Amino acid sequence: MTDFPLPPSGHLAGPLHRYAVRAFYEDTDLSGVVYHANYVKWFERARSDLLRLLGIDQRGAVESGEGAYVVAEMQIRWASPARLDDIVHITTSAEEVSAASAWLIQRAFRQDVLLAEARVRVGFVSPEGRPRRQPAPWRAAFTAFAGAEPETKPANTGTP
Amino acid sequence: MTDFPLPPSGHLAGPLHRYAVRAFYEDTDLSGVVYHANYVKWFERARSDLLRLLGIDQRGAVESGEGAYVVAEMQIRWASPARLDDIVHITTSAEEVSAASAWLIQRAFRQDVLLAEARVRVGFVSPEGRPRRQPAPWRAAFTAFAGAEPETKPANTGTP
Amino acid sequence: MTDFPLPPSGHLAGPLHRYAVRAFYEDTDLSGVVYHANYVKWFERARSDLLRLLGIDQRGAVESGEGAYVVAEMQIRWASPARLDDIVHITTSAEEVSAASAWLIQRAFRQDVLLAEARVRVGFVSPEGRPRRQPAPWRAAFTAFAGAEPETKPANTGTP
Amino acid sequence: MTDFPLPPSGHLAGPLHRYAVRAFYEDTDLSGVVYHANYVKWFERARSDLLRLLGIDQRGAVESGEGAYVVAEMQIRWASPARLDDIVHITTSAEEVSAASAWLIQRAFRQDVLLAEARVRVGFVSPEGRPRRQPAPWRAAFTAFAGAEPETKPANTGTP
Repeated sequence: MTDFPLPPSGHLAGPLHRYAVRAFYEDTDLSGVVYHANYVKWFERARSDLLRLLGIDQRGAVESGEGAYVVAEMQIRWASPARLDDIVHITTSAEEVSAASAWLIQRAFRQDVLLAEARVRVGFVSPEGRPRRQPAPWRAAFTAFAGAEPETKPANTGTP
Repeated sequence: MTDFPLPPSGHLAGPLHRYAVRAFYEDTDLSGVVYHANYVKWFERARSDLLRLLGIDQRGAVESGEGAYVVAEMQIRWASPARLDDIVHITTSAEEVSAASAWLIQRAFRQDVLLAEARVRVGFVSPEGRPRRQPAPWRAAFTAFAGAEPETKPANTGTP
Repeated sequence: MTDFPLPPSGHLAGPLHRYAVRAFYEDTDLSGVVYHANYVKWFERARSDLLRLLGIDQRGAVESGEGAYVVAEMQIRWASPARLDDIVHITTSAEEVSAASAWLIQRAFRQDVLLAEARVRVGFVSPEGRPRRQPAPWRAAFTAFAGAEPETKPANTGTP
Repeated sequence: MTDFPLPPSGHLAGPLHRYAVRAFYEDTDLSGVVYHANYVKWFERARSDLLRLLGIDQRGAVESGEGAYVVAEMQIRWASPARLDDIVHITTSAEEVSAASAWLIQRAFRQDVLLAEARVRVGFVSPEGRPRRQPAPWRAAFTAFAGAEPETKPANTGTP
């Protein structure tokens, strides 16, 4: 099955994670645009992709009973609608990382148009749902991501 | 078909709307509890039920091209998880009603346990997505709801 | 919290289970009607309600590691669309009940208009996903439901 | 924004369309595996991707009032469960193409393990939901896809 397309996957660009989704029928509602709650799902897909790129095995942690990240708080603003077939880019960065939780900033764009933005607090919890320190290597990976050097774009306008 | 059960429906209790949902398989995720984005859907069901009880015909307004309510902002906090088969009660009240939008407060409970709470700003928009004054009777209905007298519970602990 | 509305709940009428849902924004897509996959979810809600009325505790069985019902096959036909705010009635009956599975017939209606119908095979599986005999009392409850006497409507036209 | 990852996209391989999804939290339920109705959504994503690759503009057709493809019938069998983070490959081929509808075969795999397979009939309908002949170029594209030469794999075993 080596001739299959790759599944959607994002990438890291310094302290920024980039991900892309496409708007399908399932994402829209009768007003013709993407249903607001689906951005909440899209943001979760981007965070899951970020975790995987950071080497964090969510499924292993759930299955071994170690714990899971849960969304604890979200402040979200919908700025402009997305429509069927739109390619939506999602950026994720970390604002603050502590022992048991992190605040992330997530934004959705269609090209340069901001569609939605959110501040999201994710916390690590035990299988019983109690806050728990995240595994040390996970916190280290998150902290490294949060503090990564921004990509320096090659200067494409020279001096005047 | 008069012998069919009634569909889920909430009721008004002064300035508070009450609604109930049950957590189904579709609502849960592998961590065993309700997936966080589904509360966003549940809150929308409660708001739709509130609109209907206020005499606001969402579908008619969309179909006639008058406009639609959209969710513009949400601040949401998840406090405690819901599980399969739980009965979840949702309350909705209006914090502020203006010409083109309203701030609502919504809470989800399992009995007396708070599961999630949100402040939600809904705005009225034209079919092209531009903010528009909501129809006057709609605003009047919302304002009347926001300012309704709280239900006075019968005092059930009198003086001895 | 006794003054809360009841959550949606169906009822048994002989060998027929009846349930009702309402179509919300989340259920529709940009074509203005209910997205096809959502009927699959609605049918699952009706089956879950049926199980509860038969005294079958799905959540207990999952949590104790006894097993769970899974959907193994479905033949579904969408006949007519549902729209926002429609009340949709769902009927469920059992066509065949065996040791480890059952074939059910489910139909969705808006008043007398058939919206969708499905034959669904549900199987009982172990936590590892292997087919397993359903618990004896569960099979007995299912069998009793399948073989219940149809409701005889009171003859409301007397003369022959 | 040229440095963003590409959105998920499939490709054509003769009479077979290949697509890939990844299983996210939103796709799973409390039994730990992907909720059955989500395969129905995944299959729709694959069909939408196929239409785009065939040059069929679904959104344009809806917006211009020309019509839309709807799912009319589906026979689906779930064979094996998918879990969080699994990469799921979806194949789509056309069994039969007629003036107003087509029968498609869709299968979901995790590597060589069949997860689900479906026969799906999609029909073209007017905005009022009445069956209508699909646009001639669309039917031609579908027919060409159905009749494409299978890819001949380079013989990778054989003696020189």
